[in-house]
Amino acid sequence: MKIACLDFEGVLVPEMWLAVADKYNEDGLRITTRDIPDYRELMRIRLDVMAKRGLTIHDVQSAIAGLDPLPGAQEFLDWLRPRFQVAIISDTFYEFAAPLVAKLGFPMILCHRLDVEDNGNIADIRLRQEDPKRHSVLAFQSLKYKVVATGDSYNDTTMLKTADAGILFQPSQRVIDDFPEIPVALTYEELKTFFSDAAARLN
Amino acid sequence: MKIACLDFEGVLVPEMWLAVADKYNEDGLRITTRDIPDYRELMRIRLDVMAKRGLTIHDVQSAIAGLDPLPGAQEFLDWLRPRFQVAIISDTFYEFAAPLVAKLGFPMILCHRLDVEDNGNIADIRLRQEDPKRHSVLAFQSLKYKVVATGDSYNDTTMLKTADAGILFQPSQRVIDDFPEIPVALTYEELKTFFSDAAARLN
Repeated sequence: MKIACLDFEGVLVPEMWLAVADKYNEDGLRITTRDIPDYRELMRIRLDVMAKRGLTIHDVQSAIAGLDPLPGAQEFLDWLRPRFQVAIISDTFYEFAAPLVAKLGFPMILCHRLDVEDNGNIADIRLRQEDPKRHSVLAFQSLKYKVVATGDSYNDTTMLKTADAGILFQPSQRVIDDFPEIPVALTYEELKTFFSDAAARLN
Repeated sequence: MKIACLDFEGVLVPEMWLAVADKYNEDGLRITTRDIPDYRELMRIRLDVMAKRGLTIHDVQSAIAGLDPLPGAQEFLDWLRPRFQVAIISDTFYEFAAPLVAKLGFPMILCHRLDVEDNGNIADIRLRQEDPKRHSVLAFQSLKYKVVATGDSYNDTTMLKTADAGILFQPSQRVIDDFPEIPVALTYEELKTFFSDAAARLN
């Protein structure tokens, strides 16, 4: 038995901030970790844009409530859960992820929290620790598990390289160019093959 | 957000070996971790009894296939999963636990593996690591999570004492007497109260 560590947005669910950008027609919220690798800087920009537009956590949650898992994600997860112990390792926040995690049947998700004021203003972010994705892999490895991981972007690369096997899922060309040593899956079928082969090899 | 670490047998599902003992009318399989705290010794006894009776892994799995989660366990888990990230921490084996884990909707379970020969004979056990329950708590704490834990027996006590909050669930009188410093819950309602209070206190 192995542990599967999965990024959330871009692997199982859509990019949540893009849904917020769409709903409020706010291009300032279209940037993602694909554009700005430094997550604190990215979140500072997003919170500044929200403050200028007067958007609260309720507006973000309302946009996310309309989202569903990516087509094929539920089937992939249903295939994975009897074969691996599954942990979603994400840089999102519990306050945003909750409805999508419920739709996926409550797989474990390790992510961050928000400081929210009474009026719904997001005062700050509470990152769990530095380099949380890599530390999550190390924690499972400390329990003598082999870890197979997938993610789509810059903030996943330390996780993919620390895991016993790691693969990019539908990454941007820029990520592919910057990390030519990491294999790439373009479909859930390719992911399944990678996870199956890794499980057999890592016995 | 906190992590809930739950023992499996005695907390969410019946003692699986008792089901095997019942099905094959074999009193030698009635001993549990409540009786023999040393798990390697306990498993050696069980495997010896199985060998003498000619019982294979298929016989064990057939007895377990007839089991269901404990009355109230599914409701407790449904209550817990939106409130905590749930990890079952068990000294059972994936080869035994699988059907019950599926019935509970695939929560994460960290346990052990078996070495099984082609004829179904269980050759040996493959314990993941020494003191696996305590190490599981430490791994989640290394990710800056607070851990709330529950279990019913001797092999849970290091987990309960390492967790940020720990409680015994329906333990035997002998366990209560040996660990008077650990609180006790007798019902799932009491467990819910303990987990709620701990989550609020451990912010």
